[in-house]
Amino acid sequence: MLEELKKKVYEANILLPKYGLVTFTWGNVSAIDRESGLFVIKPSGVDYDTMTPDDMVVMDLNGNKVEGKLNPSSDTPTHVEIYKAFKEVGGVVHTHSSYATSWAQAGRSIPCYGTTHADYFYGEIPCVRCLTKDEIESAYEENTGHLIVNEFNRMEKDPVAVPAVLCKNHGVFTWGKDAHEAVHNAVVTEEVAKMAYRCEVINPDVKPAPQELQDKHYYRKHGANAYYGQK
Amino acid sequence: MLEELKKKVYEANILLPKYGLVTFTWGNVSAIDRESGLFVIKPSGVDYDTMTPDDMVVMDLNGNKVEGKLNPSSDTPTHVEIYKAFKEVGGVVHTHSSYATSWAQAGRSIPCYGTTHADYFYGEIPCVRCLTKDEIESAYEENTGHLIVNEFNRMEKDPVAVPAVLCKNHGVFTWGKDAHEAVHNAVVTEEVAKMAYRCEVINPDVKPAPQELQDKHYYRKHGANAYYGQK
Amino acid sequence: MLEELKKKVYEANILLPKYGLVTFTWGNVSAIDRESGLFVIKPSGVDYDTMTPDDMVVMDLNGNKVEGKLNPSSDTPTHVEIYKAFKEVGGVVHTHSSYATSWAQAGRSIPCYGTTHADYFYGEIPCVRCLTKDEIESAYEENTGHLIVNEFNRMEKDPVAVPAVLCKNHGVFTWGKDAHEAVHNAVVTEEVAKMAYRCEVINPDVKPAPQELQDKHYYRKHGANAYYGQK
Amino acid sequence: MLEELKKKVYEANILLPKYGLVTFTWGNVSAIDRESGLFVIKPSGVDYDTMTPDDMVVMDLNGNKVEGKLNPSSDTPTHVEIYKAFKEVGGVVHTHSSYATSWAQAGRSIPCYGTTHADYFYGEIPCVRCLTKDEIESAYEENTGHLIVNEFNRMEKDPVAVPAVLCKNHGVFTWGKDAHEAVHNAVVTEEVAKMAYRCEVINPDVKPAPQELQDKHYYRKHGANAYYGQK
Repeated sequence: MLEELKKKVYEANILLPKYGLVTFTWGNVSAIDRESGLFVIKPSGVDYDTMTPDDMVVMDLNGNKVEGKLNPSSDTPTHVEIYKAFKEVGGVVHTHSSYATSWAQAGRSIPCYGTTHADYFYGEIPCVRCLTKDEIESAYEENTGHLIVNEFNRMEKDPVAVPAVLCKNHGVFTWGKDAHEAVHNAVVTEEVAKMAYRCEVINPDVKPAPQELQDKHYYRKHGANAYYGQK
Repeated sequence: MLEELKKKVYEANILLPKYGLVTFTWGNVSAIDRESGLFVIKPSGVDYDTMTPDDMVVMDLNGNKVEGKLNPSSDTPTHVEIYKAFKEVGGVVHTHSSYATSWAQAGRSIPCYGTTHADYFYGEIPCVRCLTKDEIESAYEENTGHLIVNEFNRMEKDPVAVPAVLCKNHGVFTWGKDAHEAVHNAVVTEEVAKMAYRCEVINPDVKPAPQELQDKHYYRKHGANAYYGQK
Repeated sequence: MLEELKKKVYEANILLPKYGLVTFTWGNVSAIDRESGLFVIKPSGVDYDTMTPDDMVVMDLNGNKVEGKLNPSSDTPTHVEIYKAFKEVGGVVHTHSSYATSWAQAGRSIPCYGTTHADYFYGEIPCVRCLTKDEIESAYEENTGHLIVNEFNRMEKDPVAVPAVLCKNHGVFTWGKDAHEAVHNAVVTEEVAKMAYRCEVINPDVKPAPQELQDKHYYRKHGANAYYGQK
Repeated sequence: MLEELKKKVYEANILLPKYGLVTFTWGNVSAIDRESGLFVIKPSGVDYDTMTPDDMVVMDLNGNKVEGKLNPSSDTPTHVEIYKAFKEVGGVVHTHSSYATSWAQAGRSIPCYGTTHADYFYGEIPCVRCLTKDEIESAYEENTGHLIVNEFNRMEKDPVAVPAVLCKNHGVFTWGKDAHEAVHNAVVTEEVAKMAYRCEVINPDVKPAPQELQDKHYYRKHGANAYYGQK
């Protein structure tokens, strides 16, 4: 069942330690088959070293397990909400990658200080608030997903143009058209988090990059007039 | 004698350089066999590269060597006090891991700024005071153990829920149900020390994570209602 | 066509990930054959892992592709301007290397705080301003090149003595007598950016190294009286 | 000639890149044969990758080359002065290791903030002043050696108890009873420089470790009453 997708999700999960984004089991990747409405996700708390494609868990968008001998990631309900609300998203990643999580712990969005950021994210990477006591105590992971979706709606952010979010005092979610692109965006989030951190130390009065430069770089790589790469 | 435990303690010691927690010989791991009351510990000042399971030293809880051709770690008396006072502890680790030791040198406890921390430690990782001149000059390492134990008692901290401590101007001790878990907690201590450091640079006015979020993550992984992983 | 140069440019590009200067495809190296006026450059958006010498693109100094099945780097027009203005330059590198780009994002030139810097760069590594809206919207990459050249002229900086520049809110360009030396200078730029960052944290009132020390180290390695190395 | 010593000096030099203390050729190690008064040193500007034991250069304490086809390190006259003044020293290392050099650039001695430092260095690692214009312009490297020796004399520091020095705006010299120990001390210098840097960020009002703790750790490893290790 969804063998091809399981393999891709497995490989995308394995990229997390390869890129230095996770310690132990602190991260997970999923990807969805939009036709069937089923998605494949990493099992909970399983080591990357011993994991196999067969360990991947198949879920539906009601959060029910459809196939798999292991429990899915405890963050599964957050993935569900992202897939349900963001229709263009094909893959979702959650990590506690070090610099990005430091921004999340600090409760700050990552400003766009340069073209490295603008090449991938249109504007700042937002940090959404902590959940309330009530939201935490009932359906915590699902409410995390609701909050992300609601905040993107409220801020009128296009999840395709801003494929990452920080959750205050928690960690990072990124997404993309598939699992591989979602991991790619997780790597970029960590890199821009690192450079933004250092940038503010070097110049505490630094301002975000001019809007026209952000536009230039974002649209150099995205949309009808993109001219970066071999497309 | 305790061949199985020697092998495990050896392997746990080898993990210290693997995880980047030690430079040269700056660290040691021990584990106890609660039935016999004997524990196995790394020999003092021996290189991780050349060490073998046979080099491990067997000690009793009076601090006497029971077996082994080499001297035990000079920190052995500290391990003894931890085993004597914290009955649930099966393994102890001492390191000078870089970020955690920077907090220890700074004389500050590591606040719980997020769920990475809360997943493993209930509340801040405490930094205990320096020993007095008298405590240093007589039985320094034993007094380090006494201080850790006394401070946990005074602060009414459960060593199972807070399996790590910083010693001011010195380094880190962590523990766990066995040597492997103690090393695991040493890795997590270093990771949360790193993120807390950066977090405070990003937002000097940052506050600890809300108590309800700390509770949620700690009890998601620990206790009767835990639902993380495959248990 | 220019097979030898393609191989050298390929190898120099491969050094970028080897030295930790690039993530994904965020960098490019070119080198020029001054006799023919043609230069060889990395193709745009191609992975370092799968790239071969044959993928290199041959360009002329009017920015026309002379040979190659792939599109050249989108930064090609910047390379063109550097080659046209700086006649001693044989190779050019562009990266978003982490510390140097943090300085670029912060909009600050890197002061010469020590002999590591002075051994390679005579005086500070300048950070040139952002392009204006007009400059960005028409021929962005070419205008980046014009700006670098104009600013070096205005500041009366010799590009041989200062083989690196930061572009505000963007990244780094370095150059040298060939592709290999240009990469070498990119490594040094990143190292001195890292040390200057930390140096200012350690002593916020730090001043640049005395001019006589800068002179000593620069001329120990460069010019008629150099005595470093085996020359 | 001194084949054994050449091999040891070669191996000690190779440790510099292995421990991450040097970029390119930015470092050198020497060791002395006190009986003959000759010392062996790395050749100038030669890559660690291609260097062989045969490339090592034999020098006397008047700074004359005794054997070797290559030029000795340009820092040779500094090594000479250290050997001449510090009779217990058998090996000398010079690096631009990143954190320690950041302290040198900042013009600050590294305070003893903890036992990691106290285990190896008795008190702060001093940063000596820049050379004057006159000292730089005549016999720069020799004057660097004179300054180090004079400052240790003036501060009444025992070079055996403080086997490292920072040279303002420049880099680091360390030494030891042989080349291997000198490299070991270079590694420790970098580690304590890193932790002292972070420590001051975590607590800007941090004070050095209490003298009695520094004494305890230093004398736990050194002198007649040492009990660390297997001696």
